[in-house]
Amino acid sequence: MEAIASDIAADTLRAKGAARAMGAAPTAVKNQALEVIARGLGESVDAILEANQADLADERAQSLSTALIDRLTLTRERIEAMAAGVLEVAALEDPVGELLETKTLENGLEMNKVRVPLGVVAVVYEARPNVTIDCAALTIKSGNSILLKGSSYAEKTNTALAEVVRAGLAESGLPQDAVVMSVGGGRESISELATQDGVVDLLIPRGGEGLKKTLEEVATVPVIFAAAGICHVYVHSDADLEMARAIAYNAKVQRPGVCNAAETLLVDSEVAAAFLPPALESLAGGGVELVGDEIARENAGDTPVGEATAEDWDTEYLDLKLAVKVVDGVEEAIEHINLHGSGHSDAIVTENAQAAELFTQGVDSAAVYVNASTRFTDGFEFGMGAEIGVSTQKLHARGPVGLRELTTTKYVVRGDGQVRG
Amino acid sequence: MEAIASDIAADTLRAKGAARAMGAAPTAVKNQALEVIARGLGESVDAILEANQADLADERAQSLSTALIDRLTLTRERIEAMAAGVLEVAALEDPVGELLETKTLENGLEMNKVRVPLGVVAVVYEARPNVTIDCAALTIKSGNSILLKGSSYAEKTNTALAEVVRAGLAESGLPQDAVVMSVGGGRESISELATQDGVVDLLIPRGGEGLKKTLEEVATVPVIFAAAGICHVYVHSDADLEMARAIAYNAKVQRPGVCNAAETLLVDSEVAAAFLPPALESLAGGGVELVGDEIARENAGDTPVGEATAEDWDTEYLDLKLAVKVVDGVEEAIEHINLHGSGHSDAIVTENAQAAELFTQGVDSAAVYVNASTRFTDGFEFGMGAEIGVSTQKLHARGPVGLRELTTTKYVVRGDGQVRG
Repeated sequence: MEAIASDIAADTLRAKGAARAMGAAPTAVKNQALEVIARGLGESVDAILEANQADLADERAQSLSTALIDRLTLTRERIEAMAAGVLEVAALEDPVGELLETKTLENGLEMNKVRVPLGVVAVVYEARPNVTIDCAALTIKSGNSILLKGSSYAEKTNTALAEVVRAGLAESGLPQDAVVMSVGGGRESISELATQDGVVDLLIPRGGEGLKKTLEEVATVPVIFAAAGICHVYVHSDADLEMARAIAYNAKVQRPGVCNAAETLLVDSEVAAAFLPPALESLAGGGVELVGDEIARENAGDTPVGEATAEDWDTEYLDLKLAVKVVDGVEEAIEHINLHGSGHSDAIVTENAQAAELFTQGVDSAAVYVNASTRFTDGFEFGMGAEIGVSTQKLHARGPVGLRELTTTKYVVRGDGQVRG
Repeated sequence: MEAIASDIAADTLRAKGAARAMGAAPTAVKNQALEVIARGLGESVDAILEANQADLADERAQSLSTALIDRLTLTRERIEAMAAGVLEVAALEDPVGELLETKTLENGLEMNKVRVPLGVVAVVYEARPNVTIDCAALTIKSGNSILLKGSSYAEKTNTALAEVVRAGLAESGLPQDAVVMSVGGGRESISELATQDGVVDLLIPRGGEGLKKTLEEVATVPVIFAAAGICHVYVHSDADLEMARAIAYNAKVQRPGVCNAAETLLVDSEVAAAFLPPALESLAGGGVELVGDEIARENAGDTPVGEATAEDWDTEYLDLKLAVKVVDGVEEAIEHINLHGSGHSDAIVTENAQAAELFTQGVDSAAVYVNASTRFTDGFEFGMGAEIGVSTQKLHARGPVGLRELTTTKYVVRGDGQVRG
């Protein structure tokens, strides 16, 4: 196996060195590389599993929770799913070269606004080896280079996966350094990565609030944070209450540890007495710990509901816990969401078109739902293919970050000697 | 005249308080407000000129250069031009509500990606009163609120202009606080402005490198810097040399103090001997001070050319000064530009389609020209109407920042009870 440098500045420069060739690569060549990579994953299953076993056997892995161990663990099936994901990205439309605007100016200049790759994308991520492949596939297809900075817990697995990717690039005539796996160096190297101005065009940190905080302080390169999600389900007075119960249940219980799961249930005071007892019973039956404001607790029926503190409204539990609050009408719901939410995904359940309109207009979030679970905010669900994360920022990319969000634009202007008068 | 608070946090909150109503305002109402404002500028000419005279008479103004005094000075004609600009913005298409994507997912969810305002935009700018009106018009039309932080040198003029705008908003039934002029407070208040997380959605600083540096260090809100421009004209070996001379002359001389003016002339070694003597003579005749590398100086003919230092290639002169370098072919030109340029606007002069293609593909800048002056990178020239500035960043907005760049997107998803399986 090829030696991989651990110096982050050198690593990013290698990725930058490959960026121009990637930007000029035809769609067919990029797709071929992705197909070779998908095949390579299949052919290298044993080597990858062996590396993964070594990571899992490492003494550091002993300190991980069951959930984290599960995320780190690869199986034959999971590697097959990764390969299938790569082929799905190959099947997506190439965003590069898309003509976004074309016009002939009065002076005869032909102006074209075209979509071009960003250049060098860097992703810092947790011990989930599938992210290595997902991100590499997305950046290859979008004509970028990528610097992957994975968790040290997954070092051997990631290195094995990156080798498959790099071999596939080389076999297709693309520069291997379009995908660089940077290992070692810890937090300091992340700060170094975040200050590679002029080299790193976009840094996407995935993972906890600690990482986010560090980067907010030190980063000088452009950053899009894979978002935290304080998502809400608001049950309007004109809601179909059984639909509302099912949506609230799904948004909280189906997968509580993800960013598009709900953390707060807002219930209109007009329907609190009718809605809350069966809905809370259902949620408690799903293993959900409930906290609520005074009116919610008074209307809870037989289900025990703890006292919500001010902090609860601003907390992303990422767990089977839900805060419940009774509000007076859609305006109060909107106000609560805009004040306490994270601008990720929020839903209203209502049969009232006017309330739905007010809500979708007023809630300042990346995705706003009417009569559906917040859990759908996801690149796959939205038909964008894979995603690198979900952005709650307003600039550049809001919502799932897929192929298109990994591009920028360029004005190409052709003339025959025009000068400005 | 109404009292205007000088506390920046309170000012931004006032703007935020108006943001939702602005976001929901119909196009017709926003256009009506702009028309009232244009009329109001005409009706208030005397009051505005009086305020402007007071700013110019202030002892602080005595320290300003002639150029800065000129920028600060208003005349009847300049106020008329501002009013005309407001009407031009009214005539532009409203970006808000544009449906960017619509699809029905397999599960029946109707997904719409719509364009929505950013919310609160803040602009920090130099002593140019016309910026007050340009920026206010753009943010009103794009459904945003704006916090204007103008120079203290223009305080009275800006306050008079803001009053006209706010009266126009009120007369049209829009919240006055959609345009808030913040005065006083100096540099400290700019740092405070740059850290109003959750309130300021976009900060656009215009002005010098000092301001840029300060903000890079302290800003935690999203920032788009109105760009510096180290722009290049590259004369390829297959150039029409007279066209090349005219383009180089225009890019440098027509208005040297702006960001899309050229700072460096790159000349292919194959045509250096033929091109440089007449071109440099022409530039010198236009009052341009020339510095060059050794080969350029050897080929300069009778025109005196100083010795260029390493620093020259990285300097934005913003003045009648030009650095000249001889390069071997288009690849070296691209490399020089990507290393030393600011990613703003760069031009190739060539009759060779392949060289043009290599150049437009390889140069990593917001605007790349073939056979035209770099001076065209501008919102007006590009048919976008007014602009708040030109961005050399790759994220969100690259090139002129106009109406569309002052928006973000929102996914609005409608269902009939869909939950995720």
